[in-house]
Formats: sequence, C-alpha cells, structure tokens
Amino acid sequence: MELQFLGTSAGTPTTSRNVTGLALKKANTKSWILVDCGEATQHRILHTALSLRRLQAICITHLHGDHCYGLPGLLASANLMGRTDALTIIGPVELQQWLRVTLQLTHVTLSYPLRFIDVATLTAAVELDDFKVSALALSHRVPCVGYEFVETGLPRKLDKDKLLAANIEPGPVWGQLQRGNTVTLADGRMVDGDDFLLASRPPRRVIIAGDNDSPALLTDRIQSAQLLVHEATYTQDIADQLGAEPQHSSAQMIAQFAEQAVLPNLILTHFSSRYQDGGCGHTISDIEQEARAYYGGTLFLARDLDVYDLDYSGKLTQRR
Amino acid sequence: MELQFLGTSAGTPTTSRNVTGLALKKANTKSWILVDCGEATQHRILHTALSLRRLQAICITHLHGDHCYGLPGLLASANLMGRTDALTIIGPVELQQWLRVTLQLTHVTLSYPLRFIDVATLTAAVELDDFKVSALALSHRVPCVGYEFVETGLPRKLDKDKLLAANIEPGPVWGQLQRGNTVTLADGRMVDGDDFLLASRPPRRVIIAGDNDSPALLTDRIQSAQLLVHEATYTQDIADQLGAEPQHSSAQMIAQFAEQAVLPNLILTHFSSRYQDGGCGHTISDIEQEARAYYGGTLFLARDLDVYDLDYSGKLTQRR
Repeated sequence: MELQFLGTSAGTPTTSRNVTGLALKKANTKSWILVDCGEATQHRILHTALSLRRLQAICITHLHGDHCYGLPGLLASANLMGRTDALTIIGPVELQQWLRVTLQLTHVTLSYPLRFIDVATLTAAVELDDFKVSALALSHRVPCVGYEFVETGLPRKLDKDKLLAANIEPGPVWGQLQRGNTVTLADGRMVDGDDFLLASRPPRRVIIAGDNDSPALLTDRIQSAQLLVHEATYTQDIADQLGAEPQHSSAQMIAQFAEQAVLPNLILTHFSSRYQDGGCGHTISDIEQEARAYYGGTLFLARDLDVYDLDYSGKLTQRR
Repeated sequence: MELQFLGTSAGTPTTSRNVTGLALKKANTKSWILVDCGEATQHRILHTALSLRRLQAICITHLHGDHCYGLPGLLASANLMGRTDALTIIGPVELQQWLRVTLQLTHVTLSYPLRFIDVATLTAAVELDDFKVSALALSHRVPCVGYEFVETGLPRKLDKDKLLAANIEPGPVWGQLQRGNTVTLADGRMVDGDDFLLASRPPRRVIIAGDNDSPALLTDRIQSAQLLVHEATYTQDIADQLGAEPQHSSAQMIAQFAEQAVLPNLILTHFSSRYQDGGCGHTISDIEQEARAYYGGTLFLARDLDVYDLDYSGKLTQRR
C-alpha cells in the first residue's frame, strides 16, 4: 500500500505546504483514493504520477474549506481531461448540496457520473476496487470522521499438496478452484475451491483521521490497524494557550494515545502554519520532538509529496 | 501602476502556470485590486509582496471555475489573518449566491464585511481608493466582462507663478488651495484653489479583459487606454480546428485588433495548457510569434509572478 501526501498544513497553505489532501493506493495499481481535497490539491497532483482519470473515490472528512475547497476544480479538470468513469464521493450530506450548487452556478456539466454517499448513513463498509472503506466518528468543531481502509483482493493461494492428495491433478480445474468456484470433476465428485486454499495473510488496515480533539474515539479500531494518519496541529504548549475551542490534537495527545494502543506506525500531519520547516520560532521539529517523547513506534511527520509504503508485514517506510 | 500576474493558464493549471488571477495597484501603495481569482490564487500570493489584509477589491470577469474557484479559500484565509476592513467584490450576481452558500455550508463566518456589487447593474464607475472601475461587456460562453481601471488621485500641483502674481504669498494658505479649498485671504479676497492648479497629466487607463471571442467589443474604450491585458488562448490554427464553440480569442485576432486600434501596450495571457513553455509540440513561443506578426506595439506574453510597470508616460516595462 502506498500513501502520498498532497498537503500537510492546517487551515491555510504555506510556501512549502498545501492544505489537506492524501492519496491512497495499492502498489502496482493505477486506481487510487483521495482523502480530503483542500484547495490546490489538483495542483499538487500535477507533481505526482497520479491520474485524475484513475481516481476511484474521494473521501471527505469534514466540511472545512482546507479539506474540501479543491473539489470543484478537481472535478472540472477531470471533466476537461475527458473522464467518463463514475466517481464515488463519500462525505457529509451538505457536500452534495455544495457541489450541486457550485457546478450549476459555474456552468460545469460533468462528463462522468458522481456516486455520492452520505457518510452519516455509512453503517456498513463500502466496497471499492482495492479497499473496504468505513467511517469513524471523530470530535471537531463540525461533524467530522476518519476513514478506515481495509485491503481486499488478498491473494488466494491453492494448497497444492492437499489437491494432489485428493487426486485432483493440475489443469484448468485448479484455476477454477483458485477463484473459489465449486467444480464437478471428471470422476463426478463436486469440490469447493474454498476447501483447498492456504490460509491467507491478514488484510492491511489503515486509518486516516480527520480533524479530531479526542484520539480515544479511535480506540476500538486502532487495535487492528497497522497505521494511523492523524493531525497534530499544535505542540501541547500552544494547544494550552489556545484552549479547547479549535478542537485539534496536540502532538503529545496523539502520541500518548498511539503508544497506549501499541500502534506500530504513526504519521502526523496537518500542522499549524505557525510551525516552520526550519529557522527560528516554532518549527516542525518541535512537534516531532514532542511526539517522540511519548511514542516509541515508527513515526513520521509528513511533508508534501512524501510517499510512504506499508508492506505486507506491516512495515512502514518512506520512499526516497 | 503595477500589474502582477498570479495565473496565466486557461482552464486547468500546469506545473508552471496557475489559472487566472491578476493583481493591480499603484506604485508605492499597499492597497491592491485582484482581477479574477482562480483556484490557488492565495497560494501564488504567498510568493509575492501582496497582503490579503490590504486587498481592497476583487473583480470577477465571469463564473467559470478557472476564474473564481480560489475565492472561498482566499476569503477564509483573510479571515484567519484577522482582517477587519470591508472587501468589495464586483462580479455576476450568481457569485454572491455561490459565496453565501459556500461560506455557510463550510462553516465560515467572516470577520469583515463583504460589499458585493452586481456587475450587471454597474452603469457608472465604482470609486475605489486609487482607481475608478467600470465594466465592459464581452462575448463568451457565459456572461463575461472586462474591467477598465482609470487612476484617480492625480497630483494637484499649484501654479506658483500665478499665486505670486496674485499677491498670495507662500504659507498655510497654499496648502489649503492645493487641496482645492476656497479660502478667504487676510485682505478679504475669496479665492478658489482650482483656479491656481497647473494642468495635470491625463490619468492612466488599463483594460483587463475576461474571456472574449470578440475583441471589437472593446473598440470604444481601447482608444484612451494605455494597456490592454487580454486572453490569447490559442494560435489561429488551433482555434480553427476547435471551431467557434470555446468562444476564445486567438493570438492573431487580438493582435490584429490591437494593431488597428494603435494600442501602445498589449499583454497576452490565459494560454491553453497545450502550449508548453519549452520543448517540442505547441509552445508559448508559437503564440508570441503569431501575435508579433500582426502587432507592432509593446507586447508581452505573461508568465506567473511577472510584474509589469506602467509609468506616467504610458511606457510599459517588465520588472527584472
């Protein structure tokens, strides 16, 4: 699985960081999913290998502008590129209203259908090409969710020894059984493919959170996740100065939560623009140091266009 | 007068050019005007000396996304920066509806008032700090205008010889007369400041056009303009291939018009993304060569972040 950050700044862009957007895909596929779409997400995409024609779904965590103002432009540009495949959009119900009004008033007629899913009605997981997606309620100033992505399409491997022991010889029938079909053999026996599969590895699970001041809301799902991507808008000292009103997490808050959950991999993002990448004053290093003081797992602080790989074993690495 | 281009690509951004936006201001002032606000205009502004706190007015030519999708994010960022001064927005009436719906659904309450002016009702010029603005109807797929900016606040210089000849000695009274006041002198005479002013230079006039397939619509106003900024989306060969439907101008069309109008300065912008800045295939140089073949005045093809100065004499130069 690959994640590429398209924006890592909270609220407003900076000269080096755009507002929120994150691309998720399986390795070696062209199809991908976008989580949040702040203004100029389409501009960042121009600097990646991602194609708007192969974008399968967009999941919006909440209706703050730094998470959704890039949507109309991205949809219009996909239109200009001649996209015809349906595009799934998951988000708050008001998002559909906003897009309808926006496209109408700005004279856009899309050449492809939008399949809109109100996240509030998302009780079961939605099946996409490579992932099952479900939503987790979070706590922010406005209704907000995180999204859990569970990979699908795990390899189905035949237990060849068991097949041979049952006198089922190699041939086209093996292919049918591998796909899980029930097959009538030449000798009249009916056999079920599922009875001849090796145990598969567990699917990888990634949680990409929206803005959230209560990491504990993720407690149930975090147990089975290999990776959490979560905001760390402030260091604790600044969070204390600002008080509860912004309803964001500090580095300390999310690091303590991840440590307690024995989470193997954590990527922090959505940094207040007061934190610079270098120089004097508040820096991203301040956020990193605070997080490392409370979390001993694999930790990254995302930068725009960073690519991360989560391998089959659940090991997370940053691509260089 | 200074112009800075914030986007010079038509329809979609490229890796080097953003969609349309243009800043206009008088030299040595902080106050400025934005003409069109495509997505990521606020991102481009981060790379200039322009401040969202000192933005006085935004003029939108038409409601296509590449000319207006940057507005909500720019307004929200000005909010986060604590702007309190009123902001004038001139544009199609539906723009107000779109902004109202967008700000409401994305939970933005502005800390400053918006003063909205429906461009269709703009029969007289609007007085801004440094310019009078009026709108000129153009021809495009949707209602579209250009904006004429006429500088105000021309220096009022006293005719000192005339003052001395009238036995009005230097002193505080000169300042009152210079400001155009009527003053009662110590000897009882009442004199009017306007009677003692030297003839001023004519105000500079700039026309910034929106998308337009009929340059001749500008015929009346172009006569007194020192500078026209106009789209040249295609070369003529591509325009011929595409037919009339896009309703854009070719380089040849606008160059011929400017030549016939004996316009001193022309800046072309809004280039189709098929024209690259270099390399093989269609290039921006193709557009430039075509324009130069038909227009002999001072010609520039704008690039993002280019700054141009129009001096008192009407001479246009690109800042290096």
